[in-house]
Amino acid sequence: MKAAILVIGDEIISGHTVDTNSNYLANALNELGVSVVEIVSVGDRVEEIASELKALLEKADIILTSGGLGSTHDDVTKQAIAEALSRRLVLEESVIERITRRVDPHRMPKRWMLESIATLPEGSIVFENPVGLAPGVGVIEGEKIIYLLPGVPSELKAIFESSVIDHIARRASGKMLRRRVLRTAGLAESEVSEALKDWLESTTVRVGILPEISGVTLRLTAIDNEPERAERILDEATEKVLGLLGDAVYSTEGKTIEAVVGEMLIQRNLKVAVAESCTGGLVGHLLTEIPGISACLDRVLVTYSNSAKVDLLGVPEELIAAFGAVSAEVARAMACGVRERSRVDIGVSTTGIAGPSGGSESKPVGLVYMAVTNGERVIVEKRIFRGMRSAVKMRAAYHTLNMLRLFLLRG
Amino acid sequence: MKAAILVIGDEIISGHTVDTNSNYLANALNELGVSVVEIVSVGDRVEEIASELKALLEKADIILTSGGLGSTHDDVTKQAIAEALSRRLVLEESVIERITRRVDPHRMPKRWMLESIATLPEGSIVFENPVGLAPGVGVIEGEKIIYLLPGVPSELKAIFESSVIDHIARRASGKMLRRRVLRTAGLAESEVSEALKDWLESTTVRVGILPEISGVTLRLTAIDNEPERAERILDEATEKVLGLLGDAVYSTEGKTIEAVVGEMLIQRNLKVAVAESCTGGLVGHLLTEIPGISACLDRVLVTYSNSAKVDLLGVPEELIAAFGAVSAEVARAMACGVRERSRVDIGVSTTGIAGPSGGSESKPVGLVYMAVTNGERVIVEKRIFRGMRSAVKMRAAYHTLNMLRLFLLRG
Repeated sequence: MKAAILVIGDEIISGHTVDTNSNYLANALNELGVSVVEIVSVGDRVEEIASELKALLEKADIILTSGGLGSTHDDVTKQAIAEALSRRLVLEESVIERITRRVDPHRMPKRWMLESIATLPEGSIVFENPVGLAPGVGVIEGEKIIYLLPGVPSELKAIFESSVIDHIARRASGKMLRRRVLRTAGLAESEVSEALKDWLESTTVRVGILPEISGVTLRLTAIDNEPERAERILDEATEKVLGLLGDAVYSTEGKTIEAVVGEMLIQRNLKVAVAESCTGGLVGHLLTEIPGISACLDRVLVTYSNSAKVDLLGVPEELIAAFGAVSAEVARAMACGVRERSRVDIGVSTTGIAGPSGGSESKPVGLVYMAVTNGERVIVEKRIFRGMRSAVKMRAAYHTLNMLRLFLLRG
Repeated sequence: MKAAILVIGDEIISGHTVDTNSNYLANALNELGVSVVEIVSVGDRVEEIASELKALLEKADIILTSGGLGSTHDDVTKQAIAEALSRRLVLEESVIERITRRVDPHRMPKRWMLESIATLPEGSIVFENPVGLAPGVGVIEGEKIIYLLPGVPSELKAIFESSVIDHIARRASGKMLRRRVLRTAGLAESEVSEALKDWLESTTVRVGILPEISGVTLRLTAIDNEPERAERILDEATEKVLGLLGDAVYSTEGKTIEAVVGEMLIQRNLKVAVAESCTGGLVGHLLTEIPGISACLDRVLVTYSNSAKVDLLGVPEELIAAFGAVSAEVARAMACGVRERSRVDIGVSTTGIAGPSGGSESKPVGLVYMAVTNGERVIVEKRIFRGMRSAVKMRAAYHTLNMLRLFLLRG
């Protein structure tokens, strides 16, 4: 079962409004096992909408439209449907009755507005709008169906979730599609591709490999007549990937690394303190995106200056003088210092050269040392990260979170 | 002159990734006076991309594509173009040479990756990528032109702004186009529109008003036969906006607020220290995006726990007990404390409830107190920010930076 999404509105193609509906619908459809083949945005013109609808009916079994169901002059979606499918538009008094029952008489729209809203292609299915006026509309055309939804995101979501989603699920009884998102850290895209190469050539699962700044994401899709079998295929594929990539995989549920690390800390009731230099607060920012982390994150000290490293972390001045602030020795002393001074379980540190200046032959821009310690073990890693200042900070912060994750995992 | 945008990527049509490129391009094209007639998203399949390209070539004079220019197996955009236009793909050694000159030899991609990136439809125009590897590509087909851009938003923007925009302007009108980006903070979109209303109705300058999480951005575009005259029109428009919006405008050069604040600190040689609670390191992260800030930013202390506020900032325990950690009194004490203990010029603080839990009747989620002090003056502000945890953190951090800017400006 294939779907297409048609977003209607001059405000979208002019760039004035960001279309969030298509992303919401695409996600929801994929979770239903319906794959989206195309998303199209057009302006508020009857001929363009009608011609696009006809084109999409050739490509998909289900079409969802967003926008153009109101009562102003540029709301022409129903007109376009009527034209594309050669249907008459008819006034559905029952729609007006339902609105009249629900809406405060003082706020009742004028009669002509109600009539505009209630004028639908002949033979339409009506999907009630729990939060607004214009209902969703279903128009069946042979084996295909078009769902018309309003453009206001809250109304679109409310109608979709309260009734359209079930309607689609019932129709989509043929082949089922199941998806899973696996996230990895610490491997380059080419390393992931290399490790999975043989398996990719033999598997029936569709695999998308997406490099992101936090790591490489794998999206697995299985298609089968039976959803249970599709799930089983995904289970097997996940096992296979875990076997090939090991603990580089940090989530098989599409979670972020900060969420995974946050949950590990919360579950184990571990207190952590962070001493950052080049990452400038980014490790703290990522960890504090996680609700409930305040129980675990005692403090984050961005010790940018040498004196802050000495004052706040107790890094010996001689150490900085001997090895430089960007060194394995100072990273180690920072992690140990922040842990001891905060009286917490785990200390974490970063120190490096984010650039664009400050690099040298022996210590180039992008060089970062990162450390994690629990007081017994200390792990220090050195990396040279690519990219601009901002990318170096990002990569270093995510690498540090991954070090912390592996430290907790291998305990 | 009509344009269409083709967004390519399974991650988009599956709803996994939100497409921000089409909105960016649609906005920019509209400011250029080029209207977008359609935006289409398709997956990474050669036939679908090729057939969509052919369809769009019937509807538009300019087509911009986003995505699929990398070197992995699902990067098939150039192949699809070649198929749609019956062009050969040829290896452009000059592209490899340019990458080789620019990239650190230690970070050079493998030869096959370079070759994949440098293999272009015959007769392509190359638009250099200032921030990544794969260049933009222009393919002329009769009266029409297709611009291929990478899917990574920062790369797409960099290539578009540095060269493609001029290329389009010259094709569109032969006229010259000049743009200027003005950024504001502290005003809602409706307040900006209201203040500019009369001027907007009379000016010849095209003005785009974009609400962003850091504030409202104004994009001014002037078109004229002579670039000098376009510049003069923009100068006058900028003066007018400054008169109407005052010091809410923090940049007339499109700079970020963190860059503006960073430059003020660097120019005045002021040392600053930050004590963050609910923003969790985000103020530090934003400030440390600015090269050279290490000369001014002494330290950032994310004092998440009460004990960290007491230990590191000297906030009296009784103060926290009496007013709560989220209070004007504690915000003030944090700013003063971090300033004194770090022996710097300026102290900055944030304390609030980012949510989703932790709110109460009197102290709801989103409540944040922020303070700035130089030891003589202390400014404390209270705001209730809308949105989820992440949005509350963002809005609070940007508001804090704006407080610091105004503090320095009015100092």
